[in-house]
Amino acid sequence: MKEPSSLESLIQALRCLPGVGPKSAQRMAYHLLQRDQQGASRLADAMRNAVERIRHCAMCNTFTEEDLCNVCVSQRRDRALLCVVETPADLLMMEQTQTYRGLYFVLMGRLSPLDGVGPRDIHLDRLQRRASDGVVQEVILATNFTVEGEATAHYISEMVNDLGLKVTRIARGLPVGGELEHVDSGTLAQALIERRSV
Amino acid sequence: MKEPSSLESLIQALRCLPGVGPKSAQRMAYHLLQRDQQGASRLADAMRNAVERIRHCAMCNTFTEEDLCNVCVSQRRDRALLCVVETPADLLMMEQTQTYRGLYFVLMGRLSPLDGVGPRDIHLDRLQRRASDGVVQEVILATNFTVEGEATAHYISEMVNDLGLKVTRIARGLPVGGELEHVDSGTLAQALIERRSV
Repeated sequence: MKEPSSLESLIQALRCLPGVGPKSAQRMAYHLLQRDQQGASRLADAMRNAVERIRHCAMCNTFTEEDLCNVCVSQRRDRALLCVVETPADLLMMEQTQTYRGLYFVLMGRLSPLDGVGPRDIHLDRLQRRASDGVVQEVILATNFTVEGEATAHYISEMVNDLGLKVTRIARGLPVGGELEHVDSGTLAQALIERRSV
Repeated sequence: MKEPSSLESLIQALRCLPGVGPKSAQRMAYHLLQRDQQGASRLADAMRNAVERIRHCAMCNTFTEEDLCNVCVSQRRDRALLCVVETPADLLMMEQTQTYRGLYFVLMGRLSPLDGVGPRDIHLDRLQRRASDGVVQEVILATNFTVEGEATAHYISEMVNDLGLKVTRIARGLPVGGELEHVDSGTLAQALIERRSV
């Protein structure tokens, strides 16, 4: 007894999802076919649709269905500010804060020499051209505070400094509502070093 | 800033997968579009394909691409034995034991009055006709040892008894390699009650 080949292909294909191994791929496939064929149809269409329609904004590199994303076309954004983030999901997080009114540049990754990800792979040549448009005055580095995110921020800061632009890094420190007792010592040490006058 | 609508639809559609909430659906969608568009295309095709091709075996009700599955058409199976399981995945597990040579009937569920699942929903009318073909002599109940699986087994046993056929239930007991010290007391109690002479 083998599984029908189309079922086997589905199980195999589901494994491209992050965090899905052979057992959960099987469970997902059986679930869809047994209980939610409509959902499976919808999902197949949505996936095909997204792959065909989604491209990268010509200006900021985030996901969009148009030439330019709706942040880049907006007339209400401050074009002197350019915030660099690693992924479209990070951009979305920034937008959810509702405190940033500038534009973005999405790297679609981070420098990672060990994985063979170099400056060109995260579009730093494009970022350089973008930042030298004569309008941008400050580049805000909002990559993650991981080893790779920090290295990326460092690399970009040198590049942007050479262009004669202001470069800033988002602050490290205690989270809002955070208690000293429960924060890790690295974060607390940074919060102390980067203390500001009140 | 909103996500492009095809991306939003994909995130929404991914939530039909079991165990996938809003956060992991978003993570999956971004992962596919950023790192594995090919995988996403393949998955969309595989899903569409499976939904279109997979149907239920006319005899045993499991998943198949033909009228009859390859167990039911096989000439090497013992047609006097009919094993009742809840799902196609359970059938696969039975086959992997390589000790059963009879046929199957797949309920595609279990009795669950609270969820509105009654005898017709798990095709017991079809099972009754199937078992009364004059060839089947023993019905082996291999539903799960859960409350619902047990209730289903009980219901079917009465139905099949009325047909004058032999009904058996797969054994409960200690797992192979199981140690008394580490087994739950319910299982141990059953193993004691269902002890057999050696």
